[in-house]
Amino acid sequence: MASAIDFYFDFSSPYGYFASTRIDELAAKYGRDVEWHPILLGVVFKTTGSAPLPQIPMKGEYSRRDFERSARFHAIDYQEPTAFPIPTQAAARAMLWVQSKAGDDRAIEFAKALFRAYFVENRNIGDPEVVAAVGTALGLDGAALSAGMNSTAVKDQLRAETDLAMAKGVFGSPFVIVDGEPFWGFDRFDQVEALLRDGRV
Amino acid sequence: MASAIDFYFDFSSPYGYFASTRIDELAAKYGRDVEWHPILLGVVFKTTGSAPLPQIPMKGEYSRRDFERSARFHAIDYQEPTAFPIPTQAAARAMLWVQSKAGDDRAIEFAKALFRAYFVENRNIGDPEVVAAVGTALGLDGAALSAGMNSTAVKDQLRAETDLAMAKGVFGSPFVIVDGEPFWGFDRFDQVEALLRDGRV
Repeated sequence: MASAIDFYFDFSSPYGYFASTRIDELAAKYGRDVEWHPILLGVVFKTTGSAPLPQIPMKGEYSRRDFERSARFHAIDYQEPTAFPIPTQAAARAMLWVQSKAGDDRAIEFAKALFRAYFVENRNIGDPEVVAAVGTALGLDGAALSAGMNSTAVKDQLRAETDLAMAKGVFGSPFVIVDGEPFWGFDRFDQVEALLRDGRV
Repeated sequence: MASAIDFYFDFSSPYGYFASTRIDELAAKYGRDVEWHPILLGVVFKTTGSAPLPQIPMKGEYSRRDFERSARFHAIDYQEPTAFPIPTQAAARAMLWVQSKAGDDRAIEFAKALFRAYFVENRNIGDPEVVAAVGTALGLDGAALSAGMNSTAVKDQLRAETDLAMAKGVFGSPFVIVDGEPFWGFDRFDQVEALLRDGRV
């Protein structure tokens, strides 16, 4: 099987959420697996000097409109969350913990449930208790999950994962790397597909 | 005929150039005219706190790659200019002057020639003499063009056009407004087309 696709995202990123609803299906169409990498965009922004879209003059108002319009255009369930953006340490750490304890498939299922809780059900996954509740609903051990996401090991891992992503050139969400080729944004999925299909773009 | 589409761009913007090769054809397909608006992104960036892509850490390297890849993907002639980005006052003022003297169609023909000179032929249109030469090749009066682009009236107009664009929410290049709906980026042309075709997106 050809190399897995690396998919980087922040749980507070609407475009990251949009990508999360399509990446597995797109990869599977071309016989690829996907490795899901939660990262902290806040850490990345310290390097690039950027900020969450809603906080940037002019871009902020446009972005909210574009989130809703792009969701409609791509037929993706979306409701603008009341709290936005939010800290995503808890969600990202929890996903890494699930991955280490229950494997990739469970972790991806959990990540999708977290995205859906936030961007469809308007639940604030910035709150560790909400993160644990989403896990519990999937049959995960909520108490173990809460302890796990607060462990030093998982905190260190998330920091290292984010640093590693930046070392690979990742600076936004979603960010996809296919066979060394980097793609920033859900709006590059047409080019991602061209590369998967033709071997070049 | 339905309202014209407003198309805003900076002459130093590769994505603006890509859009310039497609906007007229796209609009004509749905019976629309296009009003071309050169603006100065440098002025806009003072408000948004942004900077030219190549100057942003990490994004810069990616962007160069994305310019070339996106050009290939969309089958648009493109060669990365040696000087990039460049000041675009001369080009923008010259276009406004041509518009005032020779009308919209001539101004658009001139704008396309300027974009092509810069992004295909690697001529530095940041240089007013190159701008005049591009005009001369189209049969415009080079001396009058040089004088015109340095006139106070045209300088004032460009400042006012840029301010007006910002007042309408324009903060990037390309930026398209169709029936009040704003679209930022060449990668939103699929949504622009959906709006033109269906009356909503």
